[in-house]
Amino acid sequence: MTPSAHYRCFAGCAGSYPLEQILYRCPSCGGLLEVAHDTDALRTRSAAEWRALFDARWRSLDEPYGSGVWGKHEWVMPTLAREHVVSLGEGGTHLTRIPRYAAALGLGDVRVKQCGTSHSGSFKDLGMTVLVSMVKQIIARGQPIRAIACASTGDTSAALAAYAAAAGVRAVVILPRGKISTAQLVQPLAMGALVLALDTDFDGCMAIVQQLAERDGVYLANSMNSLRLEGQKTVAIELVQQLGWRVPDWVVIPGGNLGNVSALGAGFAQLRALGVIDRLPRICVAQAAHASPLVASYRRGWAPLEPVAAKPTLASAIQIGNPVSFPKAVAALRACDGVAEAVTEAELADASARADLDGLFTCPHTGVALAALAKLAARGEITRAHQVVVVSTASGLKFAEFKVGYHERTLAEVRAPAWRNSPVELPARYDAVRGALERGLATAPSRD
Amino acid sequence: MTPSAHYRCFAGCAGSYPLEQILYRCPSCGGLLEVAHDTDALRTRSAAEWRALFDARWRSLDEPYGSGVWGKHEWVMPTLAREHVVSLGEGGTHLTRIPRYAAALGLGDVRVKQCGTSHSGSFKDLGMTVLVSMVKQIIARGQPIRAIACASTGDTSAALAAYAAAAGVRAVVILPRGKISTAQLVQPLAMGALVLALDTDFDGCMAIVQQLAERDGVYLANSMNSLRLEGQKTVAIELVQQLGWRVPDWVVIPGGNLGNVSALGAGFAQLRALGVIDRLPRICVAQAAHASPLVASYRRGWAPLEPVAAKPTLASAIQIGNPVSFPKAVAALRACDGVAEAVTEAELADASARADLDGLFTCPHTGVALAALAKLAARGEITRAHQVVVVSTASGLKFAEFKVGYHERTLAEVRAPAWRNSPVELPARYDAVRGALERGLATAPSRD
Repeated sequence: MTPSAHYRCFAGCAGSYPLEQILYRCPSCGGLLEVAHDTDALRTRSAAEWRALFDARWRSLDEPYGSGVWGKHEWVMPTLAREHVVSLGEGGTHLTRIPRYAAALGLGDVRVKQCGTSHSGSFKDLGMTVLVSMVKQIIARGQPIRAIACASTGDTSAALAAYAAAAGVRAVVILPRGKISTAQLVQPLAMGALVLALDTDFDGCMAIVQQLAERDGVYLANSMNSLRLEGQKTVAIELVQQLGWRVPDWVVIPGGNLGNVSALGAGFAQLRALGVIDRLPRICVAQAAHASPLVASYRRGWAPLEPVAAKPTLASAIQIGNPVSFPKAVAALRACDGVAEAVTEAELADASARADLDGLFTCPHTGVALAALAKLAARGEITRAHQVVVVSTASGLKFAEFKVGYHERTLAEVRAPAWRNSPVELPARYDAVRGALERGLATAPSRD
Repeated sequence: MTPSAHYRCFAGCAGSYPLEQILYRCPSCGGLLEVAHDTDALRTRSAAEWRALFDARWRSLDEPYGSGVWGKHEWVMPTLAREHVVSLGEGGTHLTRIPRYAAALGLGDVRVKQCGTSHSGSFKDLGMTVLVSMVKQIIARGQPIRAIACASTGDTSAALAAYAAAAGVRAVVILPRGKISTAQLVQPLAMGALVLALDTDFDGCMAIVQQLAERDGVYLANSMNSLRLEGQKTVAIELVQQLGWRVPDWVVIPGGNLGNVSALGAGFAQLRALGVIDRLPRICVAQAAHASPLVASYRRGWAPLEPVAAKPTLASAIQIGNPVSFPKAVAALRACDGVAEAVTEAELADASARADLDGLFTCPHTGVALAALAKLAARGEITRAHQVVVVSTASGLKFAEFKVGYHERTLAEVRAPAWRNSPVELPARYDAVRGALERGLATAPSRD
């Protein structure tokens, strides 16, 4: 049996649709779609055979299987022909121990999945390789797609621009005029995306981009697009694989639009459905308190979403008050006895800085996850006996201003940074320098 | 026979010294040391056996062999015990095709070795994992090293801070006061390095840091340190391995202090000495015209180094007028019929921007290499028949200001950027947006 997959309505409406169909929402209810895999066909290989295949392909030199995503080709997008894969070496990122941060929290084995050490600098590469590859296949089969568009100012537009450029397809980024700077858009601009800045707000942009999609051959890479989640779910498979096919006790992941936790849950569900693992890890979604509608739902027993007006947060990519993937996220969290936790701006910034002392350079979203881990540890929900993976979503190099502001004590959100470090100014005399060296080596790094 | 290695004088003075000895220069002549491997011991494995071993370990899940550096353990640092390895998943970076850039130059198979997609964002990780691991071993064997120091403002200090933090050893960065900003130092500061800013110039800093090394248990991670080159040479081994153990015709690499090309040459020499390859690629060292003493030497038949006062360049990490590794670089280039080429500020910036249109986000140093490639192609030295690898040294995310300045046309060095891209501002009307879309799709990306 050849593995296959199709779209179906996540809410349960009847109907299934090929993945080559240009479709973003359920035609019946307008809700989220999901990619449904033919689990029976996948069961023609045993769990041991899948493990052996994935281990043989792990970062292999046989392109594109060396990609963390395409090493799991049959589980991700079985109907995609290998010749249409557009890969930039995504996935296969390091799982880095943070022993001092863990010990400070009274924990044991805590590792960070470094998804930001990637081509465009964020985990978005994992989903974009799938979406752009599928678009390439759709074009090859004769559908007139002329460009791929999104309305993101951040990591999504950078990943789209990179993969579209590699595929030879134009990327279009559509945004409200005057609300974005060249600095925010420098990756997609550099990679040749057509950036259109409209005199309207985000909703106005979406209305126009939908018209372009309907009439002008533009494919939408928006957050509703379920293809991206199929790539992102490989984080779950990878981290289990990197732990010798053992399931960690907890996975902590930051959440805004909630696509990433939905993908993580889908990955673990597929691993269990195919017998590769026999239990699920508990998942904690970490949100900035300024944008925490999922946490509000969790506290009321996973009550229906009440959209909020998200306030600005240093974790700018998760400043989202009405998350698109809320239903998928809650289903994934219910299935694994998951939790949601909110953290303040000071908490996320201090956690980010403290973990950096183990040799990382964490982005503020990773700081949100690290701060939530600290809270769960403080109340005894996560203990020294638990093996924990924290998902880092982007490179800290994308957030140099956040880092500089923290260490220069100029962030309005963090009046008393606990872990700041700054240069020691000295006369150029050996005795003075030696004295500073002795003082510096006598104290733990960077406790102000 | 167990493989072994030791220090010896690069200029040929008698004597050999264990790698665990704290030694930075030849005790006889004060010149460069090199790490000499016991090639006879390494020959107890055949070339085919080495290829098979390296392929089995390539990015393996068996840590630390999944590291690009430690997968080549016996060739890199055979006397280092596995338990002392400090790895952050360095190496194994993608070899990315840039077909449109290549075609525009009239070339064929051109790939970029993405050394910047790494833990701290540059190729310096490859060398620093070796140096810090050796320091860990030296400490474990009872020598009182209390900290590792360097005098870099850039990628070296970031890599040192990361690996030292991971090893639990303190990093010390010593710099002239007032010549550096928090932004330049934000990686080492965040990772807990002790940063000492002295009221003197770089030479004054070096004088004091040498006293600390002699008297106060500080190990120097400076440019003369030969251990780092042993890690950096794995770029040569990796790119041959990624090409199916074929030798490319040309490798183009940016050069400042010239350690990186020295390491590249050492890697190819070792591959040939052990029969894994049967010829060397030609190497082109690319320099910014503002800092091009190697090019001057090349033009006079590899004449002795005449140090110059390097002028500021956008490729700031290679603004070096008196390169430490000049003798090693010239030897490597002579051995492979290598060349050196200089490029202007506008050339490096335009080449960087043009290659980005293939989906990269190149740093200015990579731009120097890409511009040199264009010059060698223009004069027919590199042709469509050649397979070419361009070594990219750092993540473009470290150079966001360079990118923004280019696309905003605010770089004084680049008055007429050829490949700039900027947002198109529009009213929020479907017809206006569709018109802009049509115009945008009708033209090649970003030609101003």
